[in-house]
Amino acid sequence: MKRLIGIQEVEDIALGAAVLGTGGGGDPYVGKLMAIEAIRQHGPVELVTIDEVDDDDMSVAIAMMGAPTVMVEKMPGGEECVSAFYAAQSYLGKTIKYVYSIEAGGINSTIPITLAAKLGLPMIDLDGMGRAFPEIQMVTHNLFGVTATPFTMADEKGNSAVLSTIDNRWMETFARSIAVNMGATSIIGAYAASGKQHREAAVFGTLSLAETIGKTLRDARAAHMDVIKALKDVTKGYVVFHGKLVDIQRRTVAGFARGEAILEGIGEDAGSRMNIQFQNENLMAARDGNIIVSVPDLITMVEEDTGEPITTEQLRYGFRVMVLAMPCHPHWRSAKGLEVVGPKYFGYDVEYVPVEQRFGS
Amino acid sequence: MKRLIGIQEVEDIALGAAVLGTGGGGDPYVGKLMAIEAIRQHGPVELVTIDEVDDDDMSVAIAMMGAPTVMVEKMPGGEECVSAFYAAQSYLGKTIKYVYSIEAGGINSTIPITLAAKLGLPMIDLDGMGRAFPEIQMVTHNLFGVTATPFTMADEKGNSAVLSTIDNRWMETFARSIAVNMGATSIIGAYAASGKQHREAAVFGTLSLAETIGKTLRDARAAHMDVIKALKDVTKGYVVFHGKLVDIQRRTVAGFARGEAILEGIGEDAGSRMNIQFQNENLMAARDGNIIVSVPDLITMVEEDTGEPITTEQLRYGFRVMVLAMPCHPHWRSAKGLEVVGPKYFGYDVEYVPVEQRFGS
Repeated sequence: MKRLIGIQEVEDIALGAAVLGTGGGGDPYVGKLMAIEAIRQHGPVELVTIDEVDDDDMSVAIAMMGAPTVMVEKMPGGEECVSAFYAAQSYLGKTIKYVYSIEAGGINSTIPITLAAKLGLPMIDLDGMGRAFPEIQMVTHNLFGVTATPFTMADEKGNSAVLSTIDNRWMETFARSIAVNMGATSIIGAYAASGKQHREAAVFGTLSLAETIGKTLRDARAAHMDVIKALKDVTKGYVVFHGKLVDIQRRTVAGFARGEAILEGIGEDAGSRMNIQFQNENLMAARDGNIIVSVPDLITMVEEDTGEPITTEQLRYGFRVMVLAMPCHPHWRSAKGLEVVGPKYFGYDVEYVPVEQRFGS
Repeated sequence: MKRLIGIQEVEDIALGAAVLGTGGGGDPYVGKLMAIEAIRQHGPVELVTIDEVDDDDMSVAIAMMGAPTVMVEKMPGGEECVSAFYAAQSYLGKTIKYVYSIEAGGINSTIPITLAAKLGLPMIDLDGMGRAFPEIQMVTHNLFGVTATPFTMADEKGNSAVLSTIDNRWMETFARSIAVNMGATSIIGAYAASGKQHREAAVFGTLSLAETIGKTLRDARAAHMDVIKALKDVTKGYVVFHGKLVDIQRRTVAGFARGEAILEGIGEDAGSRMNIQFQNENLMAARDGNIIVSVPDLITMVEEDTGEPITTEQLRYGFRVMVLAMPCHPHWRSAKGLEVVGPKYFGYDVEYVPVEQRFGS
């Protein structure tokens, strides 16, 4: 039986993906509106599992790249996605049969849905992170030698670029400066991959998981159940802090939203403080000066009453939040994975400790 | 009769193009070595006039982009040129029959010769400036609606980019940041143009003129004649100052070599000072605080005894130089031309006065 992404599924995916987006990946509201509009016009999008994809079938990830602070004000029109898709297909010289999400996040889970609806293409139920990360090389495919090339970029003015680099770290450098010049955000097509490559390198079921998280949260709200407990159960996560946002520093620099949030503990965390630093996404959470959760594990702040995930650009003084920590995909816990996205890469001189090792019973 | 560029022609072109290069366009020594080596291996390059090119025949300009200060230390291997050429051909989807120089300059007049020798293609005797200018949109073709797209870039590491923009000013922005990331210089392919487009927009005979200037200088030196007079005659130029270099400020910023040179007058200019400011190329010359020559006219410093043109990165304290001012191509004197390369574009609040109007008898 065909599985379809319709309007309700988009609502749930956008909400759930924002939980997995660890503060980044874009505003779920903006992404949702775009995808819903595309589905209204063109009909629902078929979602296939990796098992339905042939070894040779090509797919490409479509995403928004740049500072989420700017994404909020610069909603893409959709034509940029079409342009980035066809540029990739033209470079490859073969038909691209599927679209996929590079990461989980409010915008970056739903932008590929928008494009898939427009082009009448199916999506594959997988992504390249199982969460959101800020840089181009931070994709599980990169750990298995899949290249981001051809990397296609398009802006709302009609400018475009096709980049080819010797490795994915160079791609980050080149693409970031183009994204900055395109007005701090850009639509990209990247990591064109075959079914065979995905089978080895992708994180499977991310869209389904996002939908399940979103639906669980929606149902818990409707039934007036404990939303935080529901979230913990569905994400296999831990509530590591409960606090009030007392300070937020944020600056958009070199194409990233960087900053930190300070929480003052409430309830059983009264008397403690938590400091959460981010680069588009939340990178680490320190309790009273000690890092207790770090990349690659997921750190998401959710609103205490509704369980609504809060993106880094939405953080405001006075918010009462629960800090949810969730285990990352096993790919990220390999030596290579930690080299690419571990705490040391981001400048934190600590060893990575898996979240369930610290908080699991 | 076929006209061929052999080793002697390259020597003369590199020397003459550095006179037209107004301090920029790259070191003639580096450019010469590369072209001579390519001709040794692959034979001489055919040079055709615009009259021999059919309306539909396509050509592309190959050049080095970036700060000349870095070009000196980072000599391109040649493979980057081949890569930039084929990327342009692939984007266009049609055969490119000719190579041409985007500007006159020590490297940028000879890099296309290097590539033409390698690929066995003829060159067209024209360029897009009749001199050198620092930015992508400063090409006569731009005045006639020819686009720099597809703009291809390649570095010595194997990275490459193909850019497409809505106008040539955007191209400058995108390409400059990529060039900076490629290590401050990059090989580019740009302004793919048909014979028809060149007929309207190009500056004809620039390579021949460079060769004539180089040969004239060489002959004058051999015959112990007055090299400066010979240069003046062949370039239709004026010696506007004779001085000693007493101060030179130079910094590489945002992918450009910017700075200024201060000359203390000698001979009949004793007691006066000249200040020459540059952005890769010399932009304006002020005598005792008053601008007496400015873009788009050409300003080149030549060594007083040998007539050797001095590029901005070669300037050293104590050099005794003649400042040569030469009229630019008429295309640059139109309202549109002055908007793109006139003194106001570069931040000088003066009206452009043609050099022959100020110094002509």
